[in-house]
Formats: sequence, structure tokens, C-alpha cells
Amino acid sequence: MRPVAIIGAGKTPFGAFPDQDLLTLALAACRGALADASLETGAVEALYVGNFASPGFTGQNHLAPLIASSLGAPGIPATRFEAACASSGSAFFHAWSAVAAGVYDLVLVCGVEKMTSQTTARVAEILAGAGDLNGEVRAGATFPALFAMIAKRHMHDFATTREHMAHVAVKNHAHGALNPEAHLRKRITLEQALNGRPVCDPLTLYDCSLVSDGAAAVLLAPLEDAARHTTKPVRVRGVAQTSDHLALDRKTDITTFPAVAAAGRQAMRMAGVGPRDIHAAELHDCFTIAEIIALEDLGFCEKGAGGPFSASGATALGGAIPVNPSGGLKSKGHPVGATGVAQLCELVNQLRGEAGQRQVAGASLALAENLGGSGATCVVTVLEGR
Amino acid sequence: MRPVAIIGAGKTPFGAFPDQDLLTLALAACRGALADASLETGAVEALYVGNFASPGFTGQNHLAPLIASSLGAPGIPATRFEAACASSGSAFFHAWSAVAAGVYDLVLVCGVEKMTSQTTARVAEILAGAGDLNGEVRAGATFPALFAMIAKRHMHDFATTREHMAHVAVKNHAHGALNPEAHLRKRITLEQALNGRPVCDPLTLYDCSLVSDGAAAVLLAPLEDAARHTTKPVRVRGVAQTSDHLALDRKTDITTFPAVAAAGRQAMRMAGVGPRDIHAAELHDCFTIAEIIALEDLGFCEKGAGGPFSASGATALGGAIPVNPSGGLKSKGHPVGATGVAQLCELVNQLRGEAGQRQVAGASLALAENLGGSGATCVVTVLEGR
Repeated sequence: MRPVAIIGAGKTPFGAFPDQDLLTLALAACRGALADASLETGAVEALYVGNFASPGFTGQNHLAPLIASSLGAPGIPATRFEAACASSGSAFFHAWSAVAAGVYDLVLVCGVEKMTSQTTARVAEILAGAGDLNGEVRAGATFPALFAMIAKRHMHDFATTREHMAHVAVKNHAHGALNPEAHLRKRITLEQALNGRPVCDPLTLYDCSLVSDGAAAVLLAPLEDAARHTTKPVRVRGVAQTSDHLALDRKTDITTFPAVAAAGRQAMRMAGVGPRDIHAAELHDCFTIAEIIALEDLGFCEKGAGGPFSASGATALGGAIPVNPSGGLKSKGHPVGATGVAQLCELVNQLRGEAGQRQVAGASLALAENLGGSGATCVVTVLEGR
Repeated sequence: MRPVAIIGAGKTPFGAFPDQDLLTLALAACRGALADASLETGAVEALYVGNFASPGFTGQNHLAPLIASSLGAPGIPATRFEAACASSGSAFFHAWSAVAAGVYDLVLVCGVEKMTSQTTARVAEILAGAGDLNGEVRAGATFPALFAMIAKRHMHDFATTREHMAHVAVKNHAHGALNPEAHLRKRITLEQALNGRPVCDPLTLYDCSLVSDGAAAVLLAPLEDAARHTTKPVRVRGVAQTSDHLALDRKTDITTFPAVAAAGRQAMRMAGVGPRDIHAAELHDCFTIAEIIALEDLGFCEKGAGGPFSASGATALGGAIPVNPSGGLKSKGHPVGATGVAQLCELVNQLRGEAGQRQVAGASLALAENLGGSGATCVVTVLEGR
């Protein structure tokens, strides 16, 4: 396998955009990535699209050739990858693998989702399709309910508190306020987070990520070709995709995500680094408890210590390991299929030193963790800049 | 790229199975493929799932880790590929590419769809998601309507007749009657086909493929390892995936599918063969006119000659190039996401000389063509036995 680099990145702002449809968003991100690498569409050999549920959200299926042809690249292999909230992480993993193995020399990876045209109830129903429909979902569980159970158990086993979780929300909102492309650029206080409208005990509104529209794209090429396209290539040092049971009731311990731990181990082993070498991370904070558990599963802190670690300020900008400098899913927004690649776009900004007010000083090694469902898919990526 | 072989194949019967859900069908096919190669689940390094629309048909999304974990293989990368009716062809293409490039040594590819739990109107609506929702579909087009327009134009340009199309239906039903796993094992006469209930002029019920439940799976390994698992490996000689516009109104000529022609050229060039070298073919007869056009686009006959060529008997068992010995989508059935891999399962049977009453005598080189939508995705595969 040869070394691979991200040579271009593009992203739309995340938010609620009633006047922009799925295709418009995807094309904007793809064109942004191409412009970033000073490349024309004709150079692209294959298109990998991550999308969770456009048929449910918009009716449109068969999305990849629609994007490819609208982009002016009919003919190339154009494929949609679906792995719940890790859909574009999975598209990226497969695209990386194809370039690393020498199948292609230039691949475009795009993640996109258009969610805000549906009612909240319908959004919850569509998202529930990422859980086990014959078990937990049929019994009435939605994703806030599943992550509320996970939070309750984590609180029981490790004395994690609502304050710990609120600290994650406060921190991610503070970061997102510095991100001009974030969906909800609003600082909140600990009191606000604790007194948020209850969603599913113990989670309040501020423990839950957003329902957003948006798209993100990156271009992959062999590292040896990267200098032809960019002065600031970002090397993919390690990447892994793993899986696990969909249903929480099939797991022996719901306070850990084995798929996250395994993907983290595999990606960091491939990169030849450990958690202490990482300067910045984008972690999948679909709920605040998910960021706390990811910190533990990836080895950024001890098992059970994710709550106090978060409350200590270690994960804030200026802390030991800044987490979600973009604002995360919580403040930047969470257009499901776009999230995995959007995390990588943020890390590209960070590793190029172009992250503006939210720049992690001196960041040269960064990690992204993209989770699907309640842990049934995970993609972890380790990137290196200069 | 190293040579790759199919070392195991498994398939459920196709039909309407109210007592078997999506997962049950997928597991049966996967276990069939594993048993065929005398392998345990633990040997599988990655799972590639082709599925068009399980969220719409059943509500269940995030299908790949559900299948992997239920199969007893949690942990491995498990990914769903969606490319309309070419979903499992696309999953196969990417799996082949990963094995050929040395990423994995043993990969399971499964295609599955569960369609018959929905009303006909809802099925038509879900299938329409494979077309351009902002254009033709919004204007009221369904897939029978799109292929009716294609048929009308082909009739106008090339003097193709309803009898020519009816011959395709009669032939595929005759083949399917010999296939114990076909959905509709019923011979029909030319008169029946011509007098079928009108669906969308000029197409009658007998010009349209079936709405079915079913699953199919194959195991891929490097050719050099194949002898460890089977005495009858089937080599993947060539495979290609291509794309095109979704909307018919974006095309200059709707009587040809450029994605089919391109995928055929690429796959046959990779195999170093031409259409005259092929002994048997499974072509994507979602509608009878689609088989006629595929014959032309793949070079089995001249452009415009597909109708008379079909009526001549050349594509029947015993003819110059037997097409759809399985019965095709028309009689074997068309559980959309399963179709691409099911075509390969039929060719594996043919190339092993295990196709029973529908065996193409002496077949050692065979071709499958899997179409998505009205031609926006195509996967063509050339397989060799012995």
C-alpha cells in the first residue's frame, strides 16, 4: 500500500437551508475541493459518496451518478456508501484503500445530507433506521433514548454527572462560536446546558447534536503526486473501519463502543502513533456522552474518567488535547452523511494552520472518529500535516 | 492487480416470502456461500452489501453491520453499497477491486432486497427514487413509463416491434421454468405476452420484471488461494463500473445506454475477449426492451438489430449466445439489491456445469450486465470457469 494524501478539501456551511437542495449542496462541496487543488472535474477517476438517508429525507436515491453527471463527469464509477452516521467516513475509508492499493490516482469523496425539509418526528423515525428495527426500535427506542440509556449506565458505573456532560456542550458551543461555517454559533453557559429542555432523561436539548443540511468533500491522491496539486498536502497516516452489533441489548457493556476502540487501535497502529501523540481530534459528539466515551475508548483518558477529563478543560482549545475545535456535531451541526468528511475538512484546516480563531497551535497530527448508529460502525482516521 | 476468483456462491430462491425478513434472507445467502467454500464466518475479512432501498421497503437502514454481526462476524468492515438496481453489482466491483489490489484475501459480497411487504403503488414510488426526482420523476414518470419511452423510440428508429419484445419475455419465461429457484416458473406463449395487461404503452405486464424478495452472495479470494477452498474456482476475468446521467432528457439518444457500452468495452478489454467469445450471458432485463438494447450495446448484435436477433432464437438456450438462462429478472425475479450478485451466482452454476436443465453446454466464458435506473449505473463482469 502506498502513502495517500488529501490534496483538496471543500465544504458548505452547515445549517438549515430551505433554498438549497441535496444536489446543490453536494456540488458546492465537490467544486470547493476541486478548486482547492486547482483541478478540473475531468481529472477525477472515481466518485465515492457518503449519504445516510437521502431517499427518506428527500426521496432521491441513486445519488452518486446524479452528482457525478451534474459535476460534468459522467462515465466514472460513482457509488453511494451508507453506514448510518459514518456513511462518509466509510466512503473515505474505501476511497483511501483504492488509492493506497493503486486502483486510482485521483478520487473525490463527498458526504452530503439534507435533513431540515422533514418534520422532527419524521427525522427521528428516519434516524431510527440506523438501529435494530426488529428489537430496540420496534420497542419504541429512538437515538436520544438509546444514548440516554448509555449515559445513565455510565453515570451509574463511573459517577459521571450531568455537569460533566454539560461541560462538553459548553466547550463545543464555545468552539463552534469561532467557526464561521457552524450551524449554531452560540456560546452557552453551564447553567443553560443543565437547564435545557429535557429530551430523554438525563439528556437535555444541549446534550444532543443538531439536525442540519450540508456537504463536505476531499480529494485523495498518492502522496508522491501531492506536490503537483498543493503546497500543503495532508497525509493519511492511518485509517480503519470496524463494525459491531446494532442493538444495545446484544452488547455486554454499553458504556464502551468496541468498534471505536478497535478502529482507534488499528488506525493508530497503522500510523505508528499513540493517543498522546495527537494534537487535535474531531470526535463524534452526536450526544455529549458519546464524546466522553470516545475519549475513553480512544485512550485519551482512562476508562470511566471521560467526564472529569472533559470538565477539567483538557479537551478545550488551549488544553492538552483540543477536541472538536470545529464545534463538533453539537454546534457545527450534523448533516449525517456529511459528518465524516466534514471532520476531515476541519482537520485539514487545522493541519494547514488555516483554522483562524479556533486554530490549535502547532497541530501536525490529528485524529477523527466517525460513529454510525449506537456504535455499529466506526471509522477512525489519523492525519498528518507539517 | 492480482487475479481474483469466486470461490463460493449462495442464493435464496426468489419470490414473495411473507415469513422471511430482510435479515433472514441475507443470512441464508451468506451462509450458503460460506458452506459452498467450506469456510467459517471467522475467515471473512470484510463484508460488502448491495442493497437499493431497505429503508424504504422495510425501515431498516445501516444494514451491513446488522448482517455482519448476525452472521457472527462483528468487528470487520461492513459496508452497504447503493447504486439503484446495480447495487450489488457495485458492491461486487468494489470487493473485486479490494481483493485484486491486495487489501483483503477473503471478502463476502451479499445482495439483498425485501420488496413484497409494500403495496404496488409504494413500490413504484420507492423505485422512482432511482430516477431524477427534480425532473422526470417530479413530472410523473415511473420506471415503466421511462422504459416505455425508450421502447417507443427504439421502435421508431429501428422498426423494433412488440413481437420482438414479446419474444424476449417468452424466452426468459421458458428458461425460468427450468430454474427451481425462479419466482415465476411459468411458460408463456407469444400470444399471451402480446395480450398481457397494458402497463404503459407499448409495454404489457409481460414486458416488465417482477417485484421479489431474495438474496445472493459470493466469496472472493485471490486466484492463487482458490484451490484451497474449491475444486471449481471461477475467475473474474474483467469487471467495470460506469455511470451516466439519471434523467433521460439529459441524453442525446435514449435508444442506447452509454454506461452499458462503456462498461462492456472496459470489462471485455480487461478480459482480453470480445462479445463473440462469450458462451452465456445474464443481461439486465428489467424490461424486455432493456435486454434488446443491452444485446446491441454489448456488441452481441448490431445497433438496432436487437429485436430481430431476439426473435431469431439466437439468445435462447441452444442458440448462438444464450441470454438469461436463469430466467432473468423477468422470470427468475428482481429483488433489486440482490440482482447483480444473483446474476453472478447463475454464471457460477453455468461455468461449473451445475446448471441442470438450463445448462449452456460447454460454457467456459460468461458475462453479466447489471443496470441501475434507466442507465445511470452499469456494472459488467466477465467470468471464466475451468
